[in-house]
Amino acid sequence: MKKLLFVALLLAGLSPAAIAAEKGSVAWDIVSGLTTEIGPRLAGTPAEARARDWAKTRLETLGFSNVVIEPFMMRGYVRGEDRARLTAPYPQPLAVTALGYSGATPDGGIEGALIYFPTLDALNATDAGALKGKIAFVDHAMKANQDGSGYGPYGAVRRKGPAIAAQKGAIGIIIRSIGTDNHRNPHTGATDFPDDVQAIPAGAVSNPDADLIARIAASGKPMRVSLTLTGQTKDALPSGNVLAELPGRDPSLPAILVACHLDSWDLGTGAVDDASGCGIVTDAALRAQQGQQALRTIRVLWAGSEELGAFGGAAYAERHGDEPHALAMESDFGADRIWRAQFKMAESNKALQDRIVAALARHGVVYATGAPYPGADVYAIADKQKLAVIALRQDGTRYFDVHHTPDDTLDKVDPAMLEQNVAMWTEVLKIVANEAGSITGE
Amino acid sequence: MKKLLFVALLLAGLSPAAIAAEKGSVAWDIVSGLTTEIGPRLAGTPAEARARDWAKTRLETLGFSNVVIEPFMMRGYVRGEDRARLTAPYPQPLAVTALGYSGATPDGGIEGALIYFPTLDALNATDAGALKGKIAFVDHAMKANQDGSGYGPYGAVRRKGPAIAAQKGAIGIIIRSIGTDNHRNPHTGATDFPDDVQAIPAGAVSNPDADLIARIAASGKPMRVSLTLTGQTKDALPSGNVLAELPGRDPSLPAILVACHLDSWDLGTGAVDDASGCGIVTDAALRAQQGQQALRTIRVLWAGSEELGAFGGAAYAERHGDEPHALAMESDFGADRIWRAQFKMAESNKALQDRIVAALARHGVVYATGAPYPGADVYAIADKQKLAVIALRQDGTRYFDVHHTPDDTLDKVDPAMLEQNVAMWTEVLKIVANEAGSITGE
Repeated sequence: MKKLLFVALLLAGLSPAAIAAEKGSVAWDIVSGLTTEIGPRLAGTPAEARARDWAKTRLETLGFSNVVIEPFMMRGYVRGEDRARLTAPYPQPLAVTALGYSGATPDGGIEGALIYFPTLDALNATDAGALKGKIAFVDHAMKANQDGSGYGPYGAVRRKGPAIAAQKGAIGIIIRSIGTDNHRNPHTGATDFPDDVQAIPAGAVSNPDADLIARIAASGKPMRVSLTLTGQTKDALPSGNVLAELPGRDPSLPAILVACHLDSWDLGTGAVDDASGCGIVTDAALRAQQGQQALRTIRVLWAGSEELGAFGGAAYAERHGDEPHALAMESDFGADRIWRAQFKMAESNKALQDRIVAALARHGVVYATGAPYPGADVYAIADKQKLAVIALRQDGTRYFDVHHTPDDTLDKVDPAMLEQNVAMWTEVLKIVANEAGSITGE
Repeated sequence: MKKLLFVALLLAGLSPAAIAAEKGSVAWDIVSGLTTEIGPRLAGTPAEARARDWAKTRLETLGFSNVVIEPFMMRGYVRGEDRARLTAPYPQPLAVTALGYSGATPDGGIEGALIYFPTLDALNATDAGALKGKIAFVDHAMKANQDGSGYGPYGAVRRKGPAIAAQKGAIGIIIRSIGTDNHRNPHTGATDFPDDVQAIPAGAVSNPDADLIARIAASGKPMRVSLTLTGQTKDALPSGNVLAELPGRDPSLPAILVACHLDSWDLGTGAVDDASGCGIVTDAALRAQQGQQALRTIRVLWAGSEELGAFGGAAYAERHGDEPHALAMESDFGADRIWRAQFKMAESNKALQDRIVAALARHGVVYATGAPYPGADVYAIADKQKLAVIALRQDGTRYFDVHHTPDDTLDKVDPAMLEQNVAMWTEVLKIVANEAGSITGE
């Protein structure tokens, strides 16, 4: 293992000295600390509030300036009891989780016929009213890929499926988890019921449970299911962002904004999603200043309430939308190896971009065309101010194995790959934070 | 994947034709059927009773004779609510399962200081009374190995740890799961409280949760835990064995006994442990008779209640201990590749053994020295009658990833490896069931 790590580090273009340091890095300590001392930190809960206090103390200890907690209110979801059980043709328990903003069942649950749909399209094609009094099941197994692009189309089952089922009369819906593993740990995540649609109970079962349902469906035997999801949507829960700065030599220059999110889903401890991101951006910000204070201020945003509605990013844009920013970057895709970089930069910044591309290429990180998504927590400010954006893209092959599951724990973070992330971010921040010329997205 | 399966089958010495057939085999259908149509089938429960009926029907449909259910009573464990939560220094939920025969907590649980022991030896070395009013935690992470031999020493933490902690005054115990994975699915299994020791609540947490506890313990901060395990030990629950025969041409010759167990732990669906074993021995018994009825009768035993006390094997030996048997074999270690064979055979059977060794060697399965453990369900009869035993040993590297967890589901069974198991068993049964001379263990 040691040898493998060594080879991985060499492949990542890092010096062997990094091997000894990997587990003692600022990044690792943040991921280990948040997962050990806080654990699950669902937006709007006391655990998220503890995480904010923890973050403020940690960022101050690390030498950041202007560390503040900026509170805001958000629409949250408080989990209750999650249970599901096939009652026919074969009684079997199912590993289930409620989706965020699910409707609530009575404490005793609901019971009904379970109607199988292979895809979201098949659900969509069903007649209105066809599901009256029934519970829908949508299959549609997600496949892993390196760029994570499957989350768009597969994730639509979770985001849109429940509202569609509700509109067709269903009293509840179960989906196959939006995930690529084969463990009995279902993947949660937020769903969306438009204002004019009454929320119905909506859950996800693990992939092995979905396989079971699919096998029974293939046999043609009618299925029935009992579903208990007692969690509640709450309209006004307290959340907040944590901000910290490393002031630049020239405070008149617009700042570099780097972000992650502090909240996590409640099933796991949010190691991969997104303590890793906070570790990466924070460690890299510090390293970019090592030896010499940077020209520009680097502002670090540990956003609250990303998982439930990206309220932290919206609150940031509202409060700081009139302050000048130069560029926004976010890390919110785990800690596996960065393999390519995407840019949104004005033509006038072509030389700057070329220098970054060259710096990353020395480490085997390639340039990728296409406009990058800035990240959920900087999307609002980047959109409002037309900021330059650099996206350092991580290998997503394993990401959806543990995403939003109980399995998102510290052991899933590879210290050597985390270190590669910090190193690539440091390369980029050293360049952009010392750029004297204007930096802009368009 | 198709190509990989193809290569795996070629390596296993099977013809390419097996590829098409692999998922339609008798073995596969038994594993798929039991996990889909029955699912969890804890000994002593109505689910195990349904499994017996299912087994009887299936074995009759497959053409077996003398298919009977032989009921017996056993000491069982009925699961209740399983919950655990660190309350200090950091409040965090823990993924926990009760061990079989655990003592019960009140519905509201117990709460106390959690005392860390790195090993069972460390727990053993603690003064009597040192744990008074406290809850013990035993770490001691299991490592995977090919022959599964780690289950002895590591498993001792589960089998003996709770009684030791009770004797030292503990009000409860949590152990690191006896398992080699890193998922949030704790491994259950039976523990043993001697008659003179009052049972205390005893649970296992998943490996990531044990890692968390170990990290906090390393910090030196005192820990407290809340533990709720409301399951109950029941002294007299109904279980039963299912027997079936393929009569030989010479009924006067002692039979070949092949066994598996029908019950499973309740967290998963018992695909690997031990529906696979039932599929393997049953399919192989049928194939050994294909083309020509065998000389000897092959008796198939699908034992009840193996997981809780091996009551099925004991009941079989009691009821059939006066009937002649020639040889006993059992499959109860999943369905990964058979790689070696062990024998307990009299010197007078040396030529027979050599023929079997040669037949297996053609498929790359090697001879291994040492006396084999016959298997939990044939141990009693093999011991009583000094039977010959052949043990076809499977690769155990992955076995303890899912053993006794919710993750023991159909997708964990590799159809190509299952097929290799059936093929090796068929080779052996064809030889022993057609042996006219005496077969004996000593």
